[in-house]
Amino acid sequence: MANFEALVNRIASLDTNMYLNDFLLTWEKSDAEIAATFAVADALRNLRERNISTRIFDSGLGISLFRDNSTRTRFSFASACNLLGLTVQGKSQIAHGETVRETANMISFMADIIGIRDDMYIGKGNTYMREVSRAVLDGYKDGNLEQRPTLVNLQCDIDHPTQSMADMLHIIHTFGGVENLKGKKLAMTWAYSPSYGKPLSVPQGIIGLMTRFGMEVHLAHPEGYEVMPEVEEVAKQNAAKTGGKFVKSNSMADAFAGADIVYPKSWAPFAAMEKRTNLYGNGDFDGIKALEKDLLAQNANHKDWECTEDLMKKTNGGKALYMHCLPADISGVSCKEGEVEASVFDRYRVPLYKEAGFKPYIIAAMIFLSKMKDPAKALKDLETRDRQRIFQ
Amino acid sequence: MANFEALVNRIASLDTNMYLNDFLLTWEKSDAEIAATFAVADALRNLRERNISTRIFDSGLGISLFRDNSTRTRFSFASACNLLGLTVQGKSQIAHGETVRETANMISFMADIIGIRDDMYIGKGNTYMREVSRAVLDGYKDGNLEQRPTLVNLQCDIDHPTQSMADMLHIIHTFGGVENLKGKKLAMTWAYSPSYGKPLSVPQGIIGLMTRFGMEVHLAHPEGYEVMPEVEEVAKQNAAKTGGKFVKSNSMADAFAGADIVYPKSWAPFAAMEKRTNLYGNGDFDGIKALEKDLLAQNANHKDWECTEDLMKKTNGGKALYMHCLPADISGVSCKEGEVEASVFDRYRVPLYKEAGFKPYIIAAMIFLSKMKDPAKALKDLETRDRQRIFQ
Amino acid sequence: MANFEALVNRIASLDTNMYLNDFLLTWEKSDAEIAATFAVADALRNLRERNISTRIFDSGLGISLFRDNSTRTRFSFASACNLLGLTVQGKSQIAHGETVRETANMISFMADIIGIRDDMYIGKGNTYMREVSRAVLDGYKDGNLEQRPTLVNLQCDIDHPTQSMADMLHIIHTFGGVENLKGKKLAMTWAYSPSYGKPLSVPQGIIGLMTRFGMEVHLAHPEGYEVMPEVEEVAKQNAAKTGGKFVKSNSMADAFAGADIVYPKSWAPFAAMEKRTNLYGNGDFDGIKALEKDLLAQNANHKDWECTEDLMKKTNGGKALYMHCLPADISGVSCKEGEVEASVFDRYRVPLYKEAGFKPYIIAAMIFLSKMKDPAKALKDLETRDRQRIFQ
Repeated sequence: MANFEALVNRIASLDTNMYLNDFLLTWEKSDAEIAATFAVADALRNLRERNISTRIFDSGLGISLFRDNSTRTRFSFASACNLLGLTVQGKSQIAHGETVRETANMISFMADIIGIRDDMYIGKGNTYMREVSRAVLDGYKDGNLEQRPTLVNLQCDIDHPTQSMADMLHIIHTFGGVENLKGKKLAMTWAYSPSYGKPLSVPQGIIGLMTRFGMEVHLAHPEGYEVMPEVEEVAKQNAAKTGGKFVKSNSMADAFAGADIVYPKSWAPFAAMEKRTNLYGNGDFDGIKALEKDLLAQNANHKDWECTEDLMKKTNGGKALYMHCLPADISGVSCKEGEVEASVFDRYRVPLYKEAGFKPYIIAAMIFLSKMKDPAKALKDLETRDRQRIFQ
Repeated sequence: MANFEALVNRIASLDTNMYLNDFLLTWEKSDAEIAATFAVADALRNLRERNISTRIFDSGLGISLFRDNSTRTRFSFASACNLLGLTVQGKSQIAHGETVRETANMISFMADIIGIRDDMYIGKGNTYMREVSRAVLDGYKDGNLEQRPTLVNLQCDIDHPTQSMADMLHIIHTFGGVENLKGKKLAMTWAYSPSYGKPLSVPQGIIGLMTRFGMEVHLAHPEGYEVMPEVEEVAKQNAAKTGGKFVKSNSMADAFAGADIVYPKSWAPFAAMEKRTNLYGNGDFDGIKALEKDLLAQNANHKDWECTEDLMKKTNGGKALYMHCLPADISGVSCKEGEVEASVFDRYRVPLYKEAGFKPYIIAAMIFLSKMKDPAKALKDLETRDRQRIFQ
Repeated sequence: MANFEALVNRIASLDTNMYLNDFLLTWEKSDAEIAATFAVADALRNLRERNISTRIFDSGLGISLFRDNSTRTRFSFASACNLLGLTVQGKSQIAHGETVRETANMISFMADIIGIRDDMYIGKGNTYMREVSRAVLDGYKDGNLEQRPTLVNLQCDIDHPTQSMADMLHIIHTFGGVENLKGKKLAMTWAYSPSYGKPLSVPQGIIGLMTRFGMEVHLAHPEGYEVMPEVEEVAKQNAAKTGGKFVKSNSMADAFAGADIVYPKSWAPFAAMEKRTNLYGNGDFDGIKALEKDLLAQNANHKDWECTEDLMKKTNGGKALYMHCLPADISGVSCKEGEVEASVFDRYRVPLYKEAGFKPYIIAAMIFLSKMKDPAKALKDLETRDRQRIFQ
């Protein structure tokens, strides 16, 4: 791990505009801002490892608005808030429409940050986040809120920035620095799962971010499992700008061939998710049941999309870094047939847990950068303050 | 906003007895105590706006006992506790009867404050609060509890002091000081709602408090929507003491005529709520259903009790301050026919959110005054300590 | 209460190995470690009583994994965590099996402590705790977790160490010191309850701990209500080592005769609980219903096992200390016929609440000892730091 002073100097050298801004989509952030987020995450971890407290809030609330009650997201967000001194206050049901403005103001009186997870309905989650953002900005301007609460996207219908950023930081650490990634090949592939309707935000987040570092990003899935075309467009443009490549195919084997990193993971077809959103909107529950049945049947046609030892052998030196956002559907363990062979998963268990471990620091970095006017100075000052995290 | 030093001097000049005392009904508090609560709320806000931490607890618990899980009450209480350094620990179901003493002691080992919301059953909520108060006082005297947990009434069957005090502070700020309220007219009126059984504690809290400042408080409702006679008696006596007036009528138009402040809001008839309490007590669920039906039908006779633009024109200069505890039933928006016309509500949206924004500070002030022996000195010392709320 | 300096000196003189270790069963801890836990609990209480903050964590999480949502356990754990500066983050459903390792890692990124309550299934709870402990130790060794989260057993199928330790500290304070307990008689007896399936961990915890102090511990229950033989063996060996006695009988009167301390409390037969675990394992819900019926019928044969005034008269001077983990089944109050006569319970209400009040301090002491390398020095340093708990 790079030493603290180098990280601070790097942050100081980056031209960023994240103060009092939300973090909603990685492709809305400049390269400097993405780099600053990684560096702050590493710096916060470095301080914590030296038992130096990173509390920047003496009091303050982190509001969580989750449509689903996901244990992992809840603990990641709670860990990040705790690291910085915020207390989490949660609200599970989310009202869309007219009342968003009112609710957003009523829960934000002491809110420094709002983390939202709303990934279930295509066309809804990200839109909702922007509604909330506008509402609290108005509340701040009107003098109703003393502070401007900023938002962190904890997963929406389009992107999953805390996941993709944590994944990327894991890659950076594994390959010894972002400068070593040029020309590397990453395979983001669909994989079979017996469950239905997994969100698109993971593959979309991955192709939307990983194409920015000069890598070849290969998106592979069976026909009919297309992701949102807007995000593919983002990936294409990213690759064009950075000397990287964005390749699409319908072959898992092609994607794995010579890959340095593989990310095999199930998701639902974009078109089907759009259809589901409309069925919910119309309250057509019979239609939803029929759709679920169709999707499960469609999935079952592609049980050969499994990350096997044989496929892993086709990767660069047979040693590609296997990645997953967890939990994975492990064949013969968590389900009969799934995304990955048990022996592959087992071999990568420690790196997988490390991958997950970057997420709280990424979330904390996003919060930190939206609250500290001069983040490099703030980190330096925290080191100088030298307050113990655990009393010694 | 008055400056900090003036607020502190004002608090120092007031003769109060709030240390280690509960805040259950506004009319149990002296004028000095009411004034001190407003001043402390303003002073805490002033410190926060200057990024000066108001943490008076390095550790400690704020216990919430809520019969209903109200998001707004939960966030207000959580915000107030957070502002002062308390961690909230909640319990939703409330046992009445024999076990109150035991439960109260078991949850209070580290409790500095207990916030209770129990407004559903007439004759029960406030009584329950006093049971809990007695139990923890005994626990303290017996040496079971190191500290005496004090109580804040977050809404009971009789009063809603955190609402009425926040409302009053909003009025004071809007009119530029409590000294400008003499002779002003406030209309607390019933309004039609398609829902049934809204608590009486808001109108009761308003007439029980607002009659103390030399204003004319006009309570208007259709026949049959009487509030608790004991609280009307309080309002009468308040008015008599302060040179104000307490007027009753069955006409919304009369109440609005020349009013400086209007507070149109639905509530259930006191007699019906008493009946409902008894029906619940007897487990008579058929009786309750029948009662609900009757009450909805009774409400429907009074759809003309709506805060319209026409009515607003009858107020002083057509510009009365419109108030509501939120959420409001807005005609054509949240319901077909409701308490207020959409255009009226929209015009007052910003002041309404400001009104709500006073509540966390009022709750914090109640806690502060029950825990600081010399609140003026404590505020001054917090300013001198000058600890940053957000690291800078 | 012994003064602070004496407590610190006592702790310094004890040879303990609790740093970065779990607290799962009292009989895995040495006499010095048990004594240190009592002394730290008293020392933390002493500091708190002098308004000296005992926060040893500037940030950090205390994770609660509870199979049942017990209000009392939740508040005890929350109080202990709060006292030391940890924020509680809870998870209610507990997955056994394959996923334990993954879940344990995913929730532990910022976890300093994990409190687990899992007492329902014989053979499962303690085993689960050891699985979690192993998983987070691996996570720490692998570099996934920066800190090693340690575990506190908040109740399992075998032992209830936070209860028995709090009970013992209550006894020590009541009798004026552990040195006064030699030769005292403690009656741990079954008592009738109209409910079924109360956990065995309380009587097992009591006989497993109280036999270590030179007392005569008399375990009495009706035939068929045997506790786990392994724990009886522990009790026997404890008694042999400390010059105490461990006596068994089927007579409540014999147990009470001349007793200095009585602990009458219902529990389910060990064999039946084993049977229930297997029925659940097989999903045999008809079998479970039949078992419940049998157990209630079996219980009903022993309604004479009640702690009456007559029985209390048989104790030493008629003044034995009556103990219970609460809540108790009080005859004529919380049930028709129960564990204890109302007049007996009422007379001991204050000591019972005091008994319960030791638990948060015992939990805090367990956490403190697992996190402070030199606990005596840390306590001394906290006194020197002299940070106010409440601002004054």
